[in-house]
Amino acid sequence: MKEHTVTTRVRYSETDQMGVVYHAYYLYYFELGRTELLRAAGFRYRDLEARGIYLVVTESALRHRAPARYDDELKILTRVTSVGKASLRFEYSVLGPEGRLLTDGHTELAMVGQDRTPVRIPAEVAAALR
Amino acid sequence: MKEHTVTTRVRYSETDQMGVVYHAYYLYYFELGRTELLRAAGFRYRDLEARGIYLVVTESALRHRAPARYDDELKILTRVTSVGKASLRFEYSVLGPEGRLLTDGHTELAMVGQDRTPVRIPAEVAAALR
Amino acid sequence: MKEHTVTTRVRYSETDQMGVVYHAYYLYYFELGRTELLRAAGFRYRDLEARGIYLVVTESALRHRAPARYDDELKILTRVTSVGKASLRFEYSVLGPEGRLLTDGHTELAMVGQDRTPVRIPAEVAAALR
Amino acid sequence: MKEHTVTTRVRYSETDQMGVVYHAYYLYYFELGRTELLRAAGFRYRDLEARGIYLVVTESALRHRAPARYDDELKILTRVTSVGKASLRFEYSVLGPEGRLLTDGHTELAMVGQDRTPVRIPAEVAAALR
Repeated sequence: MKEHTVTTRVRYSETDQMGVVYHAYYLYYFELGRTELLRAAGFRYRDLEARGIYLVVTESALRHRAPARYDDELKILTRVTSVGKASLRFEYSVLGPEGRLLTDGHTELAMVGQDRTPVRIPAEVAAALR
Repeated sequence: MKEHTVTTRVRYSETDQMGVVYHAYYLYYFELGRTELLRAAGFRYRDLEARGIYLVVTESALRHRAPARYDDELKILTRVTSVGKASLRFEYSVLGPEGRLLTDGHTELAMVGQDRTPVRIPAEVAAALR
Repeated sequence: MKEHTVTTRVRYSETDQMGVVYHAYYLYYFELGRTELLRAAGFRYRDLEARGIYLVVTESALRHRAPARYDDELKILTRVTSVGKASLRFEYSVLGPEGRLLTDGHTELAMVGQDRTPVRIPAEVAAALR
Repeated sequence: MKEHTVTTRVRYSETDQMGVVYHAYYLYYFELGRTELLRAAGFRYRDLEARGIYLVVTESALRHRAPARYDDELKILTRVTSVGKASLRFEYSVLGPEGRLLTDGHTELAMVGQDRTPVRIPAEVAAALR
């Protein structure tokens, strides 16, 4: 299964008054991981949309183990763990300074057309992600 | 010229590690004020978009005078200060607890079609906003 | 167990280019539900923080069943489903126009002090939420 | 005066249902430009905060000339245009694919202490930014 790692730096706007990253932003980091994994596999998500194919998040789960802080450089590890007919599952680990696991989780995505009905994942995409 | 006031409460996610509202969120408050002024004037912005007419922000300015804090109830005063052929200008004041002025500013908006070229403001919209 | 319902309206900034609410915003709606449930139970979360007590999200899960759209009025149903010594569990259902279930899920929260170590939930808070 | 350029890629969450970047996100891009200019000048903003010195945005202005789209690589040019006793002015240009100017603007920042009263900019910071 495909794996990919990308780094990002915590923005000031991502902190809250507890002085740590607000929990919802991990879903943005997950998306960044997923987008860059697809790019590394040879597919730009924007090109899929240009063909009328959309990936819709149908389920997410997050476990927060330790906080990220402003300006921290985060490593986002992303793995494809399931390629279905019209769905994909990604798992993520967000690591902070010194490789400490901060948050992990997964998302399920459905491939749909512009009318939001399921669409079979193109064979070349499925092959590249397996 | 039309005026309208709406209240909103600061969300936790809108604070940053300084313990106050992150400055970009005032643009969200301005939009809330603008949307509700339009609704009070008889127009839902969603209906304009359904007719293929879009309002695009072309310019904004903000002056931050005092900080808003988590859970504060804010009053957003919005005024239409100019109605052009294909443009609108709104001015905003965001007041905090005890009516203190926190941030004020303005936005210029252009009315455009789906291709982003200028579109004349419908007569009934212009009349309702003057 | 305590239940509470609050309504909110989808902001333009919460939509993405698919024309629906970006999935991460449901965590903001969940927070709104949780905050207003606490307020209805007699506790302002800001007052807890003023006493040096913080609620930290340790786990979240979301299932997206149907999309919310710009300007939709959403109903957020929130229930406390577990009150532990130093933890709380909330479950949420976000309903759209005509009461359709759009997204549901849960969050686990830990009560911690300023040093992020576990703190026992004050008896009056636990009693009010049970 | 110091100048710096940094690139960033438009996130999906930054788009709205018009299919372009929601206007408030340019303030996030401005902040990214400012943070990285400071870093290039030898100062991490996080270290200033650790010394009890904060930069607070007191004024911003944005002119939107053309839209940015999902996955576009943006170039953010940032210049320090004024270094006062307790204030700084930054000007920004956000360029899209093929170097097209999308949005420009400025921010004024005040240097303050933890109590939000003005603080003189440390001499070595002022010198590095002039």
